[in-house]
Amino acid sequence: MEAITRVSMKVCPFVKSHSAQALRQISQNSSLASEARQCPFMRQALKNKQSVRPYSSATRPVNATAAPATDSKATRSTPYSFKGDQLKQVDVDLSSNENSFDYSGFMETELSNKRNDKSYRFFNNINRLANEFPKAHRTQEENKVTVWCSNDYLGMGRNGLTLAEMKRTLDKYGTGAGGTRNIAGHNRHAIRLESELATLHKHQAALVFSSCFVANDAVLSLLGQKLKDLVIFSDELNHASMIQGIRNSRAKKHVFKHNDLAHLESLLASYPKNTPKLIAFESVYSMCGSIAPIEKICDLADKYGALTFLDEVHAVGMYGPHGAGVAEHLDFASHLKAGINQPENSQTIMNRIDMITGTLGKAYGTVGGYVTGKASLIDWIRSYAPGFIFTTTLPPAVMAGSTSAIRYQRSTLQDRILQQKNTRYVKNNLNSLGIPVIPNPSHIVPVLVGNAADAKSASDLLLEKHNIYVQAINFPTVPIGQERLRITPTPGHGPELSNQLISALDSVFKELDLQRIDQWAAEGGLCGVGDPEAVPIEHIWTDAQLALKDADLHPNVVDPVIEPIGVSSGVAV
Amino acid sequence: MEAITRVSMKVCPFVKSHSAQALRQISQNSSLASEARQCPFMRQALKNKQSVRPYSSATRPVNATAAPATDSKATRSTPYSFKGDQLKQVDVDLSSNENSFDYSGFMETELSNKRNDKSYRFFNNINRLANEFPKAHRTQEENKVTVWCSNDYLGMGRNGLTLAEMKRTLDKYGTGAGGTRNIAGHNRHAIRLESELATLHKHQAALVFSSCFVANDAVLSLLGQKLKDLVIFSDELNHASMIQGIRNSRAKKHVFKHNDLAHLESLLASYPKNTPKLIAFESVYSMCGSIAPIEKICDLADKYGALTFLDEVHAVGMYGPHGAGVAEHLDFASHLKAGINQPENSQTIMNRIDMITGTLGKAYGTVGGYVTGKASLIDWIRSYAPGFIFTTTLPPAVMAGSTSAIRYQRSTLQDRILQQKNTRYVKNNLNSLGIPVIPNPSHIVPVLVGNAADAKSASDLLLEKHNIYVQAINFPTVPIGQERLRITPTPGHGPELSNQLISALDSVFKELDLQRIDQWAAEGGLCGVGDPEAVPIEHIWTDAQLALKDADLHPNVVDPVIEPIGVSSGVAV
Repeated sequence: MEAITRVSMKVCPFVKSHSAQALRQISQNSSLASEARQCPFMRQALKNKQSVRPYSSATRPVNATAAPATDSKATRSTPYSFKGDQLKQVDVDLSSNENSFDYSGFMETELSNKRNDKSYRFFNNINRLANEFPKAHRTQEENKVTVWCSNDYLGMGRNGLTLAEMKRTLDKYGTGAGGTRNIAGHNRHAIRLESELATLHKHQAALVFSSCFVANDAVLSLLGQKLKDLVIFSDELNHASMIQGIRNSRAKKHVFKHNDLAHLESLLASYPKNTPKLIAFESVYSMCGSIAPIEKICDLADKYGALTFLDEVHAVGMYGPHGAGVAEHLDFASHLKAGINQPENSQTIMNRIDMITGTLGKAYGTVGGYVTGKASLIDWIRSYAPGFIFTTTLPPAVMAGSTSAIRYQRSTLQDRILQQKNTRYVKNNLNSLGIPVIPNPSHIVPVLVGNAADAKSASDLLLEKHNIYVQAINFPTVPIGQERLRITPTPGHGPELSNQLISALDSVFKELDLQRIDQWAAEGGLCGVGDPEAVPIEHIWTDAQLALKDADLHPNVVDPVIEPIGVSSGVAV
Repeated sequence: MEAITRVSMKVCPFVKSHSAQALRQISQNSSLASEARQCPFMRQALKNKQSVRPYSSATRPVNATAAPATDSKATRSTPYSFKGDQLKQVDVDLSSNENSFDYSGFMETELSNKRNDKSYRFFNNINRLANEFPKAHRTQEENKVTVWCSNDYLGMGRNGLTLAEMKRTLDKYGTGAGGTRNIAGHNRHAIRLESELATLHKHQAALVFSSCFVANDAVLSLLGQKLKDLVIFSDELNHASMIQGIRNSRAKKHVFKHNDLAHLESLLASYPKNTPKLIAFESVYSMCGSIAPIEKICDLADKYGALTFLDEVHAVGMYGPHGAGVAEHLDFASHLKAGINQPENSQTIMNRIDMITGTLGKAYGTVGGYVTGKASLIDWIRSYAPGFIFTTTLPPAVMAGSTSAIRYQRSTLQDRILQQKNTRYVKNNLNSLGIPVIPNPSHIVPVLVGNAADAKSASDLLLEKHNIYVQAINFPTVPIGQERLRITPTPGHGPELSNQLISALDSVFKELDLQRIDQWAAEGGLCGVGDPEAVPIEHIWTDAQLALKDADLHPNVVDPVIEPIGVSSGVAV
């Protein structure tokens, strides 16, 4: 039937308006072939394809509702190949072994599955405008929206210093690095950026990757592949990049319940202390805004002899007096006093973490990822990780711009503080309207909706009716039944824009009759919303910290040493 | 002994000047602890570390020459932890189970191994200057060198149109994309670039990734994971990114001898036709410059029902009338005539390839990678590949600049032709001096040296004495005994610079007494150098093609349709 479906796709207005899935089901009607020959359009189209002949009665229709990957041999063998949709291969016995695998049918079935379970994604064309931040235009430039879900958390994408540095570097050093780090792609921009990152995290060394997806994947997979018998303990909410790295490492792994120290300890304790172990976790979990008990995880790591791998992707630039992340924030006063130096008591939480990974693509506004740690560890990754070795270096302009962005954010508190104040404003006002914000101590504002269709409708309504862009977050990114809108205020989302958002959300909640806090409470609560047993959340940025001024920052901060140190060029011994 | 070594590292000038490996061997001398206590410096340092006590006679020295991963339990259990080098953990019984795994020792041993087998890499600080192409400065700006090994094959890194487009885009749209493609990172720059790439390869759709390393890894691993029973056939010289993707796919794989059709066919023929199969190969192999028999591989794919996956990373921008790569070049006349349209006989080689991957980071001068293919295939990858879904989009400026670079190279032949002419000039002149260029039909000039130490010395001599930068290529990138210098002429490397290179190489070959062609011939030849049975190489760019002018290009080429087509936003059905 497939060949007929394909011809129909081109000529039949009825077929055109149906989904591939629906057509497959229709095509199981074995009278379709003869019916098609009655159709004045189809008859001609089929005649033009000399090689298409009706199936013999021996052939069986393809059951395309089941994925070919799990089909029996007979149904896997289908009447057309992916390649060039060559109809000449159509007329064959389906039970024969003489046909190619049906690649095209496989892809189409998988896409149909996604459409059916509503996980098929439609991307919105959103063009964020540097001079009108946080506005963006859609396909037409005059069609403007306010972006409320970008990960450019501090609005650094339009920072004047970064822009100037990037343009200056473009003019002097061109558009690209021109090679891998080993071959013609190692330069002062890479050396400075890595030095800056090591200084930021007060670690010995840093290594830059194309992205933090690549950094997480490359580092975790390398550790598991090389460290024989390594056991990895992974938080259940870890990001896809860490899951992929752990999977590719082929190391033994245990997934512990989210932020559950008792569960983690019970798993760690089941191995001898000298078994190599690694605990992989994040500081801020992006979709719910929760924050890991970093210090207590370090205690467990010490007790059981485990390495710690901390992803600070959603925290760098956002927490700590210098923007180094939550690990810095937890020793706020010490780091504020010490500036770019180690605090006198160097047993800081940041120092207790073996590896910190972070991104340049969110709060720092550019692109790229990195890992920091001890010199020997970073040099080892530099020397062995294919995802680092065999790829083109980021452009000099991106690296120079990133260095500039990190230095800027290290020398000011005001963006971080304003972002937190704007976050509190949105959370408080939504709560007072009964709009259910999943409680958390961070900068993420997850608004619980509770099903995929409503989340998508709410997102569409915000966009089309209120010119507000907030993408819906559905399964598999969050569990079914916990679908949400993920809102990310920035320093640029002041009271006026926030009030627009709040009233738009109120209107959308009314229009779609979405569940408010009291309704969740009546059902016993979900994700901490309306949960009578929920412990009150303490903001990670305290009121006292929010009252700080830039003058309170250590004066050395604005002039750090960023000339080459560390291992990024290789270390002679 | 390790604790003493560590304390010594900080205070002892003798220890400081020795490698970690040498120190480990010294530390196996069990009298060292008592000797250290005789030293006025060490005595004090050790006294300050109250917890450091001499080992009991029951302890055994660590044999650090063997990697811990393969050590017995007793030697794997070592007296210090990676974390904070906490000396308090030093004094323990090595045979006990109560210690952490020795992470730091493991890393250091692995690094020592690399140093010992000469595969440890030292990166050169090379800053390529846009306005003095192909010159670069080293650490000091006044210290200039000519770069002869960059993958910015056409010098596009300083292209005025790309630079202007990037700066314009930076000003209007800022420094970064601010999100993943699904959340706030999908924009006109991504849509246009993917449309441009699909048009270039005359495929239905394209998808952009952070790099082609990520594209290869993500696409191949996804195919193997999702297509049950897929068997992958991989050329033995395939790039690390493809090897990683195939490995991560966990699909069954066969490695076929480089460009060996008979071997490939024998492997393909061992499976039923309806078993899903994929042939993964490259067009230009980067380290030897060989070119795959693409058409014949397509024939085999048709015959045995296999998908074809072609990496054109080193060929895009460089081959074909429009720079679409070797697959386009093989139908040169048809594509020259057809411009951006499909030739009348659409059974071109480019059309027969299911997936083409390419890079924006080499001939196009920016950064990023992509895959092109049929709409359903690309939409499937877009919908399922974690390496695409969960990562920040490339900055708008990078995407806009890349689009500009592709369009520029599609509208001119002159850079490609001049690059080929310069390549021929260098190859011919080196050959006439008996300097052994590994014969190949492409733009790569691999000069055979034959051992790691000489290749490194030659590279160092070129840099320090002749201000010429060519990185040495050693194991594991090439087999032991086939070490080489990989030279990449560009349109900017005209006769004057080429003559400097040629005379510098001649001088280095004399100074290091490196083997020339006649000496390789006397030994029976290697890699085609001095091989009496070697078949003469035919340049892929023919003399007639090198005589073409830009006026011979189809006039439509400079004004292609690049408004949104394809699947990059999701397809409604």
